[in-house]
Order: sequence, then structure tokens, then C-alpha cells
Amino acid sequence: MSPAKTPMGAARGAIIPVGGAEEKMSDARILRRFVGLCGGQEAKIAVIATASQLADTGDRYEALFTELGAGRVRSLPFETRADCDNPELLDKLVRATGVFMTGGNQLRLATTLGGTDVARTIRTLNAAGVPVAGTSAGAAFLSEHMIAHGEDGAVPRANIVTLAPGLGLTNRVVIDQHFRQRDRLGRLLTALAYNPFAIGVGLDEDTAAFIGPDETLEVVGSGGVTIVDCSNVEYSSMDQVGDHEAVCLIGLRMHILTAGATFNLHTRIATAPHAVAAPS
Amino acid sequence: MSPAKTPMGAARGAIIPVGGAEEKMSDARILRRFVGLCGGQEAKIAVIATASQLADTGDRYEALFTELGAGRVRSLPFETRADCDNPELLDKLVRATGVFMTGGNQLRLATTLGGTDVARTIRTLNAAGVPVAGTSAGAAFLSEHMIAHGEDGAVPRANIVTLAPGLGLTNRVVIDQHFRQRDRLGRLLTALAYNPFAIGVGLDEDTAAFIGPDETLEVVGSGGVTIVDCSNVEYSSMDQVGDHEAVCLIGLRMHILTAGATFNLHTRIATAPHAVAAPS
Repeated sequence: MSPAKTPMGAARGAIIPVGGAEEKMSDARILRRFVGLCGGQEAKIAVIATASQLADTGDRYEALFTELGAGRVRSLPFETRADCDNPELLDKLVRATGVFMTGGNQLRLATTLGGTDVARTIRTLNAAGVPVAGTSAGAAFLSEHMIAHGEDGAVPRANIVTLAPGLGLTNRVVIDQHFRQRDRLGRLLTALAYNPFAIGVGLDEDTAAFIGPDETLEVVGSGGVTIVDCSNVEYSSMDQVGDHEAVCLIGLRMHILTAGATFNLHTRIATAPHAVAAPS
Repeated sequence: MSPAKTPMGAARGAIIPVGGAEEKMSDARILRRFVGLCGGQEAKIAVIATASQLADTGDRYEALFTELGAGRVRSLPFETRADCDNPELLDKLVRATGVFMTGGNQLRLATTLGGTDVARTIRTLNAAGVPVAGTSAGAAFLSEHMIAHGEDGAVPRANIVTLAPGLGLTNRVVIDQHFRQRDRLGRLLTALAYNPFAIGVGLDEDTAAFIGPDETLEVVGSGGVTIVDCSNVEYSSMDQVGDHEAVCLIGLRMHILTAGATFNLHTRIATAPHAVAAPS
């Protein structure tokens, strides 16, 4: 599954994975920026709380986005695969100028939305210019190869991570979240060691990567984004090691990016915060 | 303090940081290899258990090395700075063909041995060809810049690590231990972010880096060694960030090495396990 085709003349919408636990009470800069991208007062934001086990998650984000000035916000209760055929709900989704997926369990998202009209609609919307954001489990689900679950630790080891197909808005990245807080470098490296084509994006809590249509990712929030670039990997022992043994990986390139720093997923070049001079 | 000068014609002895919790009961491959380097049946190994708070640590390693075939093993009780002037103990140290420092607290080592004849003697011995190993705290103490203590986590943050002067057998590396087990990449990166000249060596438990006189490090043991090479770092925000804020670091190179893999501290080139063909 490759990303849905962008209509002639349209630019793909932003893809916005958030590392979870984004700040909501004071500046809420990640959510505020998302609302702006969706059109601010003109925005129609669809909240999808399928990942969450808590009944009020959708309502909380509805209230939050409304407070942040979004014109209209609707939490759409896709709780079962049957809900994903509900024409009334789908009709609301189709009109959205922004989609936000909450945290919870990314396998709830994949098993409920996978292969349904909801997934197809979100992919089509994004290809036509609509921003799609997800926090925590919602972030993991955005890309083609999703980390379903795994074990903690800094070093890659055989079989400590389980990959599953995700929503597929992009296949350039493998996303992990709560990154610093849950010590997840090892499982991200393990995911990349299988096939080094993808770029690893490890998001700390309260930190987001805004991936624009130009494939440039910008960091927003209070933490760091760990970028792992495997394009120059010279050797991986992943095909040879036994269960839970450490994997040998030679030639990783890594950047720790903070707010304002960028990374281009095409050129694989990182820039420091404020590296671009303000117009004089 | 730079490493002691190697006498004409002599090669420096191996420097062997061990990540702690090295296997002692079955193959004991790290300790066995160390005994071999020290001369096997001809070896005279000095054990320094200064870092440990346990009274029997020195005796345990004495028994262990004897079991592994070392000719003579002596635990030398340098417990106070006054002990470090004891001519009888120093005389035994001078005759050693191998020195092993146990785990415990690296600040016990630095505060007790620092600037004494014991430190000077170990440096001179190593420069003249005697292997010097240390496990856990003993490993941290080996290099010029020692991680005294720090906080866990995968991302570098301002002020999460405290550096102190170590024994100074080499200044090319900053060593960290229990690496995977205690999630220490962030503190190692923080230490390197101050001044990217050094190479970061993160040792998992039961894993050692045997650094030969040719500055080539070889991995021995069941875990991984994480090498962080900052020589191409393009940007570090370490001078600008507030306390505990994430540090932006662009252009890190990293290798995860397992048993048999090597890394040359001069050329900064890593080789995979078994990359060197066996003689035909």
C-alpha cells in the first residue's frame, strides 16, 4: 500500500505525529498549530478516539480544539468495524479539514479502521491537502510500517519489536512515541534493522514532527525528536542473531532535534533551530 | 593529564573496560581472555577493589582469577589515601603483569587513588605494556574524562551528567557501563555534547571492549557496545539550553557492535564480526 495519489494541482496535507502527553492547558502549542493548519475558525476537525478505552477521550479533544478556536469539531465514534460503514459518520469525515487520532492502543486503530472506508477516506483527504495528526498510538498508526508493540532498552535486539501495517500516509518513516520517557531507541533500531530504507522518528512526549508536503519535518514542542538515518548502514547482523541477542549495526547516523530544527526526509539533511535567517 | 609516556620499544598494554555483571561461572570469556593477556600461568594480577563497599569483593576476584589459571593473584587493599603510600602494597603493585579494578562507585576510586602513587604506578605499568581492566565503576574510571554520575534516558539533556577526571589511561573515549540495562545513551550523549572530540563507548553488561595498543577496540561478551562518533557533528545546542532541556545534536554517527566486531579509535572505522577472513 503506497500513499494515496495526490490530485493534480493539490499538495498533500501535513502529517503530524505527536509523542503523546502533549501540553493542553497553557500554551498548547502543538494542538494550537494543528488547529491553525486546519483553518482556524474555518476548521472542521474530525476527532477519532478509536484507540482509547476511555469513554470521554473524544469529548475532551472536542472541547480542547473548540477552546483553541477551531470552527467546528466532531468526535466520530468509530468503535467497531461496522461503525466504519456508517454513512452518516463517513459523511462527516469526508467534510473534515483536519483529522486527529487520539492515544490508546495502536492495534485498536489498525484492527478497527484497517481496510475500511474510514482508512480510505483519511488517506484520500490527506492526499488532497487535509492535515492528519495523531498522538501516541495515533502517531504510531500514521505510517505504513507501524510499531505495534515492543520491549524497552537502548540497544537493538532480535525480536523485541513487532511491526504491523499502519494507515500508510507515508512509508518513509517508522514512528515511535513516548520515546525518551519509555526508553525506546532499541526497539526503533530493531525495526529499522530489518530493512534500513525507512527513517526512524522517535518522538518524546509533548513533542511533534510536522511533516509538510515538501517532506520537511519541523519539530514543535518541549522535548526532542530522535532521527535515525540508516541510509549509510554498512552492516546489520539481524539475519544471523538468535532471539533477544544484541544486533550489530554499523554506520547509523543520528540527530537529536529540538523545537525549530528540521529534517528533510528526501535529502536527509537536518538543520538547527533558527538556522534560517528571519527576513530582513 | 595525558597518558603516561610509553618507554622506547614498548607497546602500551591493553585497556579493558567491562560493562559490569560479567559472566563468571561458565565460560567467563571476558575474564579468561584478560588472564591470558596478563600471562596466564605466569600472570601476576593485582586486584583493586577500592570502588566496592563489600568486604569480600577483592577476595572473590582473587579466587576467580586463580580458578581461571592465573599464576598469582593479589587483592591490594587501597582503602584510604594513606594506604596508597604503603610501600609494601605499592611494591606488589609494581610487579603486576595485569591490573583489575572491580565495580562499586567510581568516585570512591577517583577520590581514593587520584593523584597518589597507586594511580601513577598503574599509568606507568600500562604505558609499559601491562593490561589494565575495570568492570562497571572500574571501567568508568579508566579514561581521562569519567562519568561520575547522571540520570537515565535516551535523549541528551542539559546537566544530566557529571564528568570528573579519571585515571587517564586514554583520553580518546568516554566510557559508560550497564548501558542497555540502565538506559544511559542520553547521559553519554550529554557528556559528548560538551566537547565532541571524544568517542563514546557504551558497554552493556557482560560485555567488554579490549582496546589494543594499535587503538583498535574489539568486543568480547554477550551484549553490545554502542559507539558514538561525534567527529561530524554539525551543531550542538548545549551552550544555549536551560537545565534539563533536551539538547539538539545534528550529525551523530553510531554503531552497535557485538562480539568480534571492532572499532579503530584513530580511523573511526568499524568492522563487522568475522569481517577478517580466516587464513586459508
